[in-house]
Amino acid sequence: MSSPRRLEVWGVTGIGEVTRAADLAGMIADAVAGQGDELRDRDVVVVTQKVVSKAEGKMVEVDVSDPRAHRAVVEAESVRVLRRRGDLSIVETKHGFVCANAGVDLSNVEAGWAALLPDDSDRSARRIRDGLRARTGADVGVVVSDTFGRAWRRGLTDVAIGCAGIAALVDLRGSTDSLGRELHATEVALVDELAGAAELVMGKADGVPAAVVRGGPDWWFRPRTSVREELVRPPHEDLFR
Amino acid sequence: MSSPRRLEVWGVTGIGEVTRAADLAGMIADAVAGQGDELRDRDVVVVTQKVVSKAEGKMVEVDVSDPRAHRAVVEAESVRVLRRRGDLSIVETKHGFVCANAGVDLSNVEAGWAALLPDDSDRSARRIRDGLRARTGADVGVVVSDTFGRAWRRGLTDVAIGCAGIAALVDLRGSTDSLGRELHATEVALVDELAGAAELVMGKADGVPAAVVRGGPDWWFRPRTSVREELVRPPHEDLFR
Repeated sequence: MSSPRRLEVWGVTGIGEVTRAADLAGMIADAVAGQGDELRDRDVVVVTQKVVSKAEGKMVEVDVSDPRAHRAVVEAESVRVLRRRGDLSIVETKHGFVCANAGVDLSNVEAGWAALLPDDSDRSARRIRDGLRARTGADVGVVVSDTFGRAWRRGLTDVAIGCAGIAALVDLRGSTDSLGRELHATEVALVDELAGAAELVMGKADGVPAAVVRGGPDWWFRPRTSVREELVRPPHEDLFR
Repeated sequence: MSSPRRLEVWGVTGIGEVTRAADLAGMIADAVAGQGDELRDRDVVVVTQKVVSKAEGKMVEVDVSDPRAHRAVVEAESVRVLRRRGDLSIVETKHGFVCANAGVDLSNVEAGWAALLPDDSDRSARRIRDGLRARTGADVGVVVSDTFGRAWRRGLTDVAIGCAGIAALVDLRGSTDSLGRELHATEVALVDELAGAAELVMGKADGVPAAVVRGGPDWWFRPRTSVREELVRPPHEDLFR
């Protein structure tokens, strides 16, 4: 199994404000064209949760001046609270993600509104992938990303909450290291590393809701993939729930 | 604060086998030159822990046929065991990292030997950075990376265990979102996202121990940085210890 030797990663600017029922795939394709480029087979398009949620109408009104109102929205999205400190709740969402405040997001959202996570981010990724193929003919991978905290380490990183056409996990078990010994338990969370790489060219403050990663090898890509099925660790095998 | 619009990420091939007291910076500079390129100011050079540990002689003999021998090495590197399941121990290392088996690594290492984490990976990164500057004149950022698991999500990602010249955390608090509202608590773990992006071009099986990320903006870079001081979450503020 060989690795890519060179990747290009760039932010897709000029997408504009995304509203309910927007043709997000079309907007991304137009914006890439506006950058003088066009999507190619085996490009990976990373799209932030926020614009996916906006396009899918996953917005709720919330009185931010009332902490209880925000907490009520968070609790409605949660199946389990792991930890709580002040306004911060670390919860398991109904989708199975463990994150702060159930991913309910007030930034880059109209005042008085909050963006919820998509109902099924893998399906969202498949829709965007199909839309991009219909629009451009390119067979791309799509990752829907969100910004999560982690246990044990400060700072947030972007991770994948949905994917289509690109492997969520790359299993290197059974391949050998450079000294010919078998590698054990080396399942790399490919789509999380792609989401983080995309964040490097997005920037929270800039309203760049999509990025392209070009140069990935053929073995990254496969038709049937899922963050929820491959990457979300079931509670029964999780040592930290 | 503006973001980079385009990054190039490539694996540095042709570094060769790294042995004790090897001039790692010189080997990296030569290998980049062998690729027909040369390091520039504000490139980020990501180097895997394994070759840093090899160059620093952080190797111990271990009889892999004896699980107790491996566990003894892990315990010597640990200050606290968070969880244990079979051969797997999730521990806090003496450096403060929470990871599996204290980062003690048997792959890509001579049979009968294990690679331990560097004593001070930030210092390791500073040495490599100074060596690269002396050798090439380029003022680069350096990240020392390792492959860690996570709570709640399957799969491993590469993260930073040391850095020099590049901000470990980028604090976007106080900057405003694209709708002009202040962003709260958006500290991005820049060096972790860079380590993950670098892993995408390394590949466990290929013995590519370094990568270059080119195109980062000026505000990523500063002289005094530290993974241990900025990124490692002290137990007293950690909700999951």
